[in-house]
Amino acid sequence: MRFLTFSHNGKQSWGVRTDQGVSNIGERLQGRFPSLRSFIGDPEFKRLANEAIERSALIQEDEITFLPPIPDPDKIICVGLNYEEHRVETNHAPTGFPTLFTRFAASQCGHGAPIMLPTESRELDYEAELVAVIGKPCFKVSEGEALSNIVGYSCYNDGSIRDWQTHTTQFLPGKNFISTGAFGPYLVTKDEVGDPQDLAITCRLNGQIVQSARTDQMIHNIASQISYISRFTPLVPGDLIVTGTPGGVGFTRSPQLFMKAGDLVEVEIENVGQLKNPIVAET
Amino acid sequence: MRFLTFSHNGKQSWGVRTDQGVSNIGERLQGRFPSLRSFIGDPEFKRLANEAIERSALIQEDEITFLPPIPDPDKIICVGLNYEEHRVETNHAPTGFPTLFTRFAASQCGHGAPIMLPTESRELDYEAELVAVIGKPCFKVSEGEALSNIVGYSCYNDGSIRDWQTHTTQFLPGKNFISTGAFGPYLVTKDEVGDPQDLAITCRLNGQIVQSARTDQMIHNIASQISYISRFTPLVPGDLIVTGTPGGVGFTRSPQLFMKAGDLVEVEIENVGQLKNPIVAET
Repeated sequence: MRFLTFSHNGKQSWGVRTDQGVSNIGERLQGRFPSLRSFIGDPEFKRLANEAIERSALIQEDEITFLPPIPDPDKIICVGLNYEEHRVETNHAPTGFPTLFTRFAASQCGHGAPIMLPTESRELDYEAELVAVIGKPCFKVSEGEALSNIVGYSCYNDGSIRDWQTHTTQFLPGKNFISTGAFGPYLVTKDEVGDPQDLAITCRLNGQIVQSARTDQMIHNIASQISYISRFTPLVPGDLIVTGTPGGVGFTRSPQLFMKAGDLVEVEIENVGQLKNPIVAET
Repeated sequence: MRFLTFSHNGKQSWGVRTDQGVSNIGERLQGRFPSLRSFIGDPEFKRLANEAIERSALIQEDEITFLPPIPDPDKIICVGLNYEEHRVETNHAPTGFPTLFTRFAASQCGHGAPIMLPTESRELDYEAELVAVIGKPCFKVSEGEALSNIVGYSCYNDGSIRDWQTHTTQFLPGKNFISTGAFGPYLVTKDEVGDPQDLAITCRLNGQIVQSARTDQMIHNIASQISYISRFTPLVPGDLIVTGTPGGVGFTRSPQLFMKAGDLVEVEIENVGQLKNPIVAET
């Protein structure tokens, strides 16, 4: 199933994408589940969704504004330098552990929304990533158990302000400008995705392929990422694990390639979807 | 005024410390303000508190369990390497910008609560810090305006798991083990603190002074920290700016000094308070 969060006639809701359109099941279920984040935390969410679809309003996709499927995660944990080609192009030494940083929720935007080039910088770069969404509370899980805690996957564009990312050793500022982290369009349940380590992942800028890889090229696979993270912090439903970007980013090219106002950037992941965003300059 | 969040008879509330004890104003006001975070976001919070004190139950401090004054911040932004002696002792190059990382709310604990030595490590280190609590929404504020957005201050012990902090370039894992970030006892409103850049700050381990400095030794003062952060992310009431630790931490000593089960660690800041925590091993 494909879940989404959206606004329609100025009202935020969440729902399911069916062949007929968007079923606004959030409107029916919001007393019990105010957000998609709370809904996917219920072990019975698929049955509840199927029951609600027939009785919910149907909206066409061109009537909605996509929001991040989980606009309000408790935690967004990103894994840096997790494809060998990207590690080498950015001149980082190999490590035996995942390189972790966070985004704040305010840095996210949905499918179709502008990725914002801030007035502070000209160095806005793309990063196509597969994001895993946690569905069950978990703490200190083994690699063998890790994937059972995922509810589904989506596309992420971990838009990065490179000069601010390298002000110091810590990536945080360059990863947290508002409306730079695109996420969506849908949270696709894992049964529709198949093996998350065997997916084609592509980034296109103005139609040109700038990143192209397969998720089997990750240095730390998703199970080991979740197991490692869960050794220090408890994961809860709706937490996002943004699993790293392949080689081909713009700032290590010669000449450097940054996104500018008027550009269109697309992240496409096999079985997961296509996330498209225009670049708009902050005013 | 000194505000606090606590549990009493198994129920979480928040209140004000008066000369007579703890006034449980949160119990009276919780319909409108479910948490201290929401309360300090109201421009009239001091007047409302004074009105509520007389009509609220009085509890003695030995009947409560202290929780972090803001247990549920939207963001906890920590400034690393912000005293020259600490930058030098940790062998980091100088930078023109604050070094920023985050803690998740789950890593916090209150005054008197155990700071937990996790099974994953033996390298639990202390870091005494002044924390500034944001009281007004702000975005892109100048250094001149920055301090007007602070509601008050508290003590923080940014307990760090050193081996996990240095697994990669990014500090996040070592700063996010559960119950390692002690915060409290009180959120002291800024009128009672005076100049935040002119306070004595001390850390004691088992009664011995291990850190002793003044906040005028910060490399990036609090106004410049807030101004810098607000250039990329909007700050909201309850956000925490943890402003850096002085020299004297344990892991750069020879021999190294780590905290172990049975230890007692204290952070004391002039005009702000004394934060005491026992060290307990995770079982």
